[in-house]
Amino acid sequence: MSKLLIVGTVAFDAIETPFGKTDKILGGAATYIGLSAANFNVQSAIVSVVGEDFPEEYLTMLQHKNIDTSGVEIVKGGKTFFWSGRYHNDLNSRDTLDTQLNVLADFNPVVPETYKDAEIVMLGNLHPIVQLSVLEQMESTPKLAVLDTMNFWMDHALEDLKKVIARVDVITINDEEARQLSGEYSLVKAARAIEKMGPKYVVIKKGEHGALLFYKDQVFFAPALPLEEVFDPTGAGDTFAGGFTGFLTKTGDISFDNMKKAIIHASNLASFCVEKFGTERMQNLKREEVQKRLLEFKELTKFEIELA
Amino acid sequence: MSKLLIVGTVAFDAIETPFGKTDKILGGAATYIGLSAANFNVQSAIVSVVGEDFPEEYLTMLQHKNIDTSGVEIVKGGKTFFWSGRYHNDLNSRDTLDTQLNVLADFNPVVPETYKDAEIVMLGNLHPIVQLSVLEQMESTPKLAVLDTMNFWMDHALEDLKKVIARVDVITINDEEARQLSGEYSLVKAARAIEKMGPKYVVIKKGEHGALLFYKDQVFFAPALPLEEVFDPTGAGDTFAGGFTGFLTKTGDISFDNMKKAIIHASNLASFCVEKFGTERMQNLKREEVQKRLLEFKELTKFEIELA
Repeated sequence: MSKLLIVGTVAFDAIETPFGKTDKILGGAATYIGLSAANFNVQSAIVSVVGEDFPEEYLTMLQHKNIDTSGVEIVKGGKTFFWSGRYHNDLNSRDTLDTQLNVLADFNPVVPETYKDAEIVMLGNLHPIVQLSVLEQMESTPKLAVLDTMNFWMDHALEDLKKVIARVDVITINDEEARQLSGEYSLVKAARAIEKMGPKYVVIKKGEHGALLFYKDQVFFAPALPLEEVFDPTGAGDTFAGGFTGFLTKTGDISFDNMKKAIIHASNLASFCVEKFGTERMQNLKREEVQKRLLEFKELTKFEIELA
Repeated sequence: MSKLLIVGTVAFDAIETPFGKTDKILGGAATYIGLSAANFNVQSAIVSVVGEDFPEEYLTMLQHKNIDTSGVEIVKGGKTFFWSGRYHNDLNSRDTLDTQLNVLADFNPVVPETYKDAEIVMLGNLHPIVQLSVLEQMESTPKLAVLDTMNFWMDHALEDLKKVIARVDVITINDEEARQLSGEYSLVKAARAIEKMGPKYVVIKKGEHGALLFYKDQVFFAPALPLEEVFDPTGAGDTFAGGFTGFLTKTGDISFDNMKKAIIHASNLASFCVEKFGTERMQNLKREEVQKRLLEFKELTKFEIELA
């Protein structure tokens, strides 16, 4: 079976939503990606960094999900990256209350020897220089390199970001970020412009409005499941990325048709993530729940149409 | 074949978008609905009112589309309803620059004798009292009554609006209006709340994000075609309503499964409407273009998924 290499933050989050607030809980892009990909029983490893304050039980939990954490550096005397944010009433926007980079400030990622030949590499949201360093440590060009990023890096490290973008096969960003990166309002035009920067595939995440996959002149649309209640959107995009790469790792098929399926699985998993605070839902997600909701996805968009 | 009765405005619009502006051109909810439904070669009639300033060529054009305009009252010495608006850069919001009710102020709709037994009634956006009056003139309860409305009536005539809502089978509104009408942010909850007000089916239009059809505990999602350029969104919702009711009128089948198809046809037609100013695109739409894009809709959301 293929292997999935994940780089991204492993962190503490403190989250406020209209429905409540948390103390410091487990968070971070790589955490969500790993937990999501674990639903496909793939071999995966996380490259990240934490401080001495990071509870061992969290790492144990990840290991129990078949995630190799030997690439998670534990900095003696260091403090784990901390992010705190408050969501607005519509849950579509948020304010960052606090960001403490801590050990992330001097992070030099080290890819475990056994993962230098990983077929799929998922570059989770992090400084583009760190993402680039991971790519450069690979023994051979991965079968598929997928990049997730955010507007922060477009604002503060655009040149570095463009270097990573030029080297990946797939980029996943949200609609506003696609517009910012391309300077195009139309998402069709934005995707075309981003394809010219390097990635053959462009995935645009629209949150509650679903996701679009662009490849050459083709486009695929995956809906988001209409949910009765979104509790906490934190990590939904990372969970999406983890579902996407987890499915591709498991199937070993990176064709456009299989990517469509991957997007559906990704949307499905993301729909669970938002139902509870932080990683809680993803830590305890059952196979039967995932399968059941996949069927709902099928029903949601299934139609027969005849040309009259 | 079934008959489709349409009530709504027939009007002059003056539109400004980031791409240009128009003088007074043909507009109005009933105009868009009629032009859209005409793609199914159904028998339809418009109930509306215009002033003496309304060019006869416009009525002739509608008649050539097989639309009965005997229910369009022409008020001697009166002036046609006029709306003028300017769209913001993202085309998702607009400012009304001018509204002149003119002949619409004293409009008493009269349903033509030959349409008092119409199977499908499309109540286009207009004062709820006018919509109610049309329903009351029907000889028998129509097979399907569909209501389109907007936030303006929620703000200014909520009690009247609720009376119409209680009497229709389907309501089509946009996401913000569904939230306003129900007081629920979640669209799933909003749809359930609105179902309790009367309609068995709730269609929530999300513009570029597609449309949702709710019926009991079932939900269907139709994507919007990702367009390279939206030129002028005016009339897209009415075109959607016209496509929806036109297809149902043609097929005579008001099952949930057929409504799914109707929503796809509706989205398809709406995707053309926004490509040019006003009704221009809908006046000259060719059957082959419609069929071709329907196939694109199929491709857009088609996926195979196996439960692993």
